[in-house]
This record gives sequence, C-alpha cells and structure tokens, in this order.
Amino acid sequence: MYIAMNRFKIVPGKEEDFEEVWATRDTHLDQVPGYVEFRLLRGPEHEDHTLYASHTIWESEAAFRDWTRSEAFKAAHRNAGDNRGLYLGHPQFEGFQVTLGSD
Amino acid sequence: MYIAMNRFKIVPGKEEDFEEVWATRDTHLDQVPGYVEFRLLRGPEHEDHTLYASHTIWESEAAFRDWTRSEAFKAAHRNAGDNRGLYLGHPQFEGFQVTLGSD
Repeated sequence: MYIAMNRFKIVPGKEEDFEEVWATRDTHLDQVPGYVEFRLLRGPEHEDHTLYASHTIWESEAAFRDWTRSEAFKAAHRNAGDNRGLYLGHPQFEGFQVTLGSD
Repeated sequence: MYIAMNRFKIVPGKEEDFEEVWATRDTHLDQVPGYVEFRLLRGPEHEDHTLYASHTIWESEAAFRDWTRSEAFKAAHRNAGDNRGLYLGHPQFEGFQVTLGSD
C-alpha cells in the first residue's frame, strides 16, 4: 500500500476557497486501477499559512506512477494553474510506503 | 476523523533499526477509546536522512488529546529517549482534520 501526499501552504483567509476547489473538482479517480481512497486534510495553522495535505491511498506505488502518466491525470490537473492567489509557493509532493500496520 | 502524524528524519543506514523499534513496541493502542488505526510510513530519501512518518487515525482530535494525557501514553513513550543515534533532530508533530473524503 502506498500513500501519495501533496502538502499545500494556503494563504491565511483563503482556506474556504481552497477547500471549494477540491470539493468541486472532477477527477474520475474511482475509475483508475489501483486507486483506493482520497482525503483532503487540514493541518496546523502557521503565521503565514495554513497547511493542507491531499492524501491518496493506492494499492501500490506502481499504480500511482501509472496514473501520473495517464490521460486521466492530465485531465485532472488541466486547471491546476488557476487559483494562484491561494498558495504560498508550490505544493510539495511526498510519497510513502506503508511499512507497518494495515497491509 | 483526525490523523496524527509524527515526522522522523532517520540517519541513512539506520532505517532497519528504526523500523525494528516500531515493530517491537507495545502500545496497547487498540484498547484506547477513539483509536482507529496505526501505520508506519516510509517516505522519500534525502541526502542526509530518510523521512518516516507515524500515521495514526483517531475518531476525533479530542480522542487523541485524551490519549496524550493518559497513563497509556506515558507508558508508550517511556523509552522514547533510547535509540538516539537513529534520528536527525526531533520528530515533528502534525495533526490533520479530514475535511473531504471518507468521514
């Protein structure tokens, strides 16, 4: 099992706008082989940003990598350049292998 | 739903020792009210460390906070000072509220 996380630093006061972007997006992820589950996480607030993380569980890292090379991935990220005013810097990707625990 | 994560920077070459610490610990977490699930995650390798994260799901932040004030928590962390040679710096705690997705 593999967890793909993207960390987003959101400008204070823009949290609702950011959540709205995720609530209204259309990813078709549930049709992608190896996709298990998506969550959006709201983390700690700092002076200059609120941390969020997307948290997607995949059956394997290979399934995730396959998705990033697919047309579905391109379609899901087509509008990623919009909403620039919400972010402090670029998102930071971190992929995790589950080494202990379920699966 | 709440996800408590601790980020650990592990000295290169000490990854197996670190995983062994977690594999052999005895937390009794499954007897704690509000506890849902534990995973240990292995993240990206950097030049001076390998990132790991503990990943514990709780029914609520309140359940997690209650645990941190409990005798069970003290017992689980009694030996946290051992194994100092494994770490680069202190672990970094981040708590996340699930805002979209399951629950």
